Amino acid sequence: MIKSKKMKQNIKYLFAPGSIAVIGASHNPAKIGYAITRNFKEGGYWGKVYPINPNVQQILGLKCYASVKDVKGSVDCAIICVPAKFVANVLRECAAKGVKAAIVISGGFSEVGNVEGEKELMKIAEENNMALIGPNCLGVLNPASKVDSLFLPIYKLERPRVGTIGFISQSGAVGGCIIDMAGRAGIGISKFISYGNAAGIDEADLLEYLGSDRNTKVIVCYIEGVKEGRNFMKIAKEVAKRKPVIVLKAGVSKKGAEAAKSHTGSLAGDTQAYRAMFKQCHLIEAQTLMRLFYFAKIFYQPLPKGKRVGIVTNGGGSGVLATDALEYSHLDLAQPSEETIKALKDKLPTYVNVRNPLDIIGDANSARYALAVDAMMRDPNIDILVVIVLFQTVALDSTVVDVLIRASETYGKPLVVVSTGGEYTEAQKRILDSYNIPTYHSPNAAMDSIAKAVEYAEFQRKRNLR
Amino acid sequence: MIKSKKMKQNIKYLFAPGSIAVIGASHNPAKIGYAITRNFKEGGYWGKVYPINPNVQQILGLKCYASVKDVKGSVDCAIICVPAKFVANVLRECAAKGVKAAIVISGGFSEVGNVEGEKELMKIAEENNMALIGPNCLGVLNPASKVDSLFLPIYKLERPRVGTIGFISQSGAVGGCIIDMAGRAGIGISKFISYGNAAGIDEADLLEYLGSDRNTKVIVCYIEGVKEGRNFMKIAKEVAKRKPVIVLKAGVSKKGAEAAKSHTGSLAGDTQAYRAMFKQCHLIEAQTLMRLFYFAKIFYQPLPKGKRVGIVTNGGGSGVLATDALEYSHLDLAQPSEETIKALKDKLPTYVNVRNPLDIIGDANSARYALAVDAMMRDPNIDILVVIVLFQTVALDSTVVDVLIRASETYGKPLVVVSTGGEYTEAQKRILDSYNIPTYHSPNAAMDSIAKAVEYAEFQRKRNLR
Repeated sequence: MIKSKKMKQNIKYLFAPGSIAVIGASHNPAKIGYAITRNFKEGGYWGKVYPINPNVQQILGLKCYASVKDVKGSVDCAIICVPAKFVANVLRECAAKGVKAAIVISGGFSEVGNVEGEKELMKIAEENNMALIGPNCLGVLNPASKVDSLFLPIYKLERPRVGTIGFISQSGAVGGCIIDMAGRAGIGISKFISYGNAAGIDEADLLEYLGSDRNTKVIVCYIEGVKEGRNFMKIAKEVAKRKPVIVLKAGVSKKGAEAAKSHTGSLAGDTQAYRAMFKQCHLIEAQTLMRLFYFAKIFYQPLPKGKRVGIVTNGGGSGVLATDALEYSHLDLAQPSEETIKALKDKLPTYVNVRNPLDIIGDANSARYALAVDAMMRDPNIDILVVIVLFQTVALDSTVVDVLIRASETYGKPLVVVSTGGEYTEAQKRILDSYNIPTYHSPNAAMDSIAKAVEYAEFQRKRNLR
Repeated sequence: MIKSKKMKQNIKYLFAPGSIAVIGASHNPAKIGYAITRNFKEGGYWGKVYPINPNVQQILGLKCYASVKDVKGSVDCAIICVPAKFVANVLRECAAKGVKAAIVISGGFSEVGNVEGEKELMKIAEENNMALIGPNCLGVLNPASKVDSLFLPIYKLERPRVGTIGFISQSGAVGGCIIDMAGRAGIGISKFISYGNAAGIDEADLLEYLGSDRNTKVIVCYIEGVKEGRNFMKIAKEVAKRKPVIVLKAGVSKKGAEAAKSHTGSLAGDTQAYRAMFKQCHLIEAQTLMRLFYFAKIFYQPLPKGKRVGIVTNGGGSGVLATDALEYSHLDLAQPSEETIKALKDKLPTYVNVRNPLDIIGDANSARYALAVDAMMRDPNIDILVVIVLFQTVALDSTVVDVLIRASETYGKPLVVVSTGGEYTEAQKRILDSYNIPTYHSPNAAMDSIAKAVEYAEFQRKRNLR
């Protein structure tokens, strides 16, 4: 599909429209059109909301219109959830009204063999420069503007806070689950897009858009198949120079590829070809769902200058596990400078063995953490600091969280936290994550992610030397 | 150390004593002796509780004694948290009183070079057949009898429910964090022991004990170093024949081994030697903290008869990811029988593509899950069923949980659930876990664990053929 400059410019109306229409709005809580209307009515969206349904007067206290044409003011974005057979007509009405962007939630197109129906939508979008997402998708979530076309109720699917991770997902289901998990873990996102069949705007367009989006620092993509490989590759290569792009490609195994074919009809393609493409474009491949966000979180922090890792811990065993994990991930255990060692020996209790990993012992309080973390963060021999915190100890109170936030803001060097536990620990970790300090529940996940940051930083350094 | 039969018999008093004394009890909430007394007073422990402290009359409403000798009734188990220099004397008093088991929480022994002090404790225990845990440990948690010597407050460290996983940890810190995480995730344990310096009872004794414990179905061990390798190996080999034993050995890397040496003074030993030993004994090695419990959970279920995996999902993308993961883990994608395929085609909506993975589509409700799960569980061509549930969909309500519990109880075949999400999803997963259905948040973790069950089942089959 040929996308005009105008159409691409209209993508912004998907994320921050001044007004939206929900076409297929409903007052029946079991309906998608109810859930979406409610998201906008009660979610804090500041623009105008126009429910469209010819059979209803009011929905959730909002005046309801028979057609988008009946709305007096302008409509920037339409969210369409009427049955497939009505979608083309509704989209034409939107075009006539001057709607600039549309999210077609409705399924019933190419995924069930209705290729002609999908082509028709494509044509309408093309002729009217309309930025079209879908059909057959969850659509868009922007926690900043409160655009939320996800029809899954909030009690079932949590919405993440405002953050810096942009997330593009072909699958609504997989994307939704991850968004839900991210919400619970306190991970923030800038924009989420489930693009479904991609009749209009596709993964490459979204990648390009997020590549230029000031609020997006790192991009995460879940894809099953790429429609126009060459174009995607060209754009990915450019975007990866500006910000890290993490990709999970489903259907990489032989059996998985067959399953993918049955699911979306899209050819999953040759694994080796994809892998080579990702590598060539300097995309960061995540082999599992969990790694998508493990890897994304590491880029909250500045890029490391090298791969020498310092470790501070209040649990000796955890320090050992972290050192094991560090070696697995081909990172180096930093050798702290003599100055650092001297400073630490002067200030820490005599029973602390001053070395790396630095075990400040189970009786460490926040003040001892501050001493250790500051000394290690200042040390030029250390490129990344991993702070392991056993929040469960009697000696430690939650002010250690402030110590870590301050250190992270002060030294311009990556700081990563590893902490394993239950609800109390998770609560502390959510605070850290909300200050863009990546937290991991295992040393392996942390070191694995740090290795990706080291690799990306290396790529950037080489680029700058050219 | 030579352990008499009598001493080993006394191990039971660590887990289900009729009466306990907290020596070093305190009414200062900042003290370990307060936390432990409170665990017993308020945790539901049914036996007698005697706080011991010569300077106090009452602690938490319990009469306080100057010495264990002053207690009129018998004392089965003593929990000792007085400073190191007083421990030997206290232990002698316990021996005189006829105390059968002791948990020495106090540190300040071999871990700080006080080898003589530790030998003294060893000698007292030996001479009196006392089952001694510690020193320098968290001690024992038995959710069934409510024995709980963990001095970390419950608001910081959650206690897991009663379950079938026995957990032996050298490190109190690592063990405590995992217990806390298990508590939050709804994973149940039979017994937890942090054994610290192992002056008396060591990892081999505990393994032997849990090997014969009726309430323990699977054993998890976190170890940094083994004291008597040959003895451990002999016992592990015997126990692994009866139930699965999962081991995480810290300090397996070169740098990690050095860190371990600094931490516990124990030589972490040669990695290859440990690996060979684990393999020879048919122990299941977990390379990461997370895998310890991923692997343990799979043994909730009956052992699989083979490695042919069936997959049911309401999210197509998740089915693709699961198939990828299955191939990574060298499992086979089951080919359902013609009978199953016919039955499913007859009953499922026509738009469902009947194959494995079986994607019953996002509009699946509990009834459709029941149809699909029952047919796949009945199929003799399927050895293990993985059910992926996106609880977030509009069509699905939480009765699907009952469907899964019933299926798991009915067919005597392993059933595993994969589900990714936030609080609502986690709540459903906790229910499943509490009915001993293992849940995983990623297909990779599930398949990885299933592969271990397949391997262990194979070992058992070969043994039975002999």
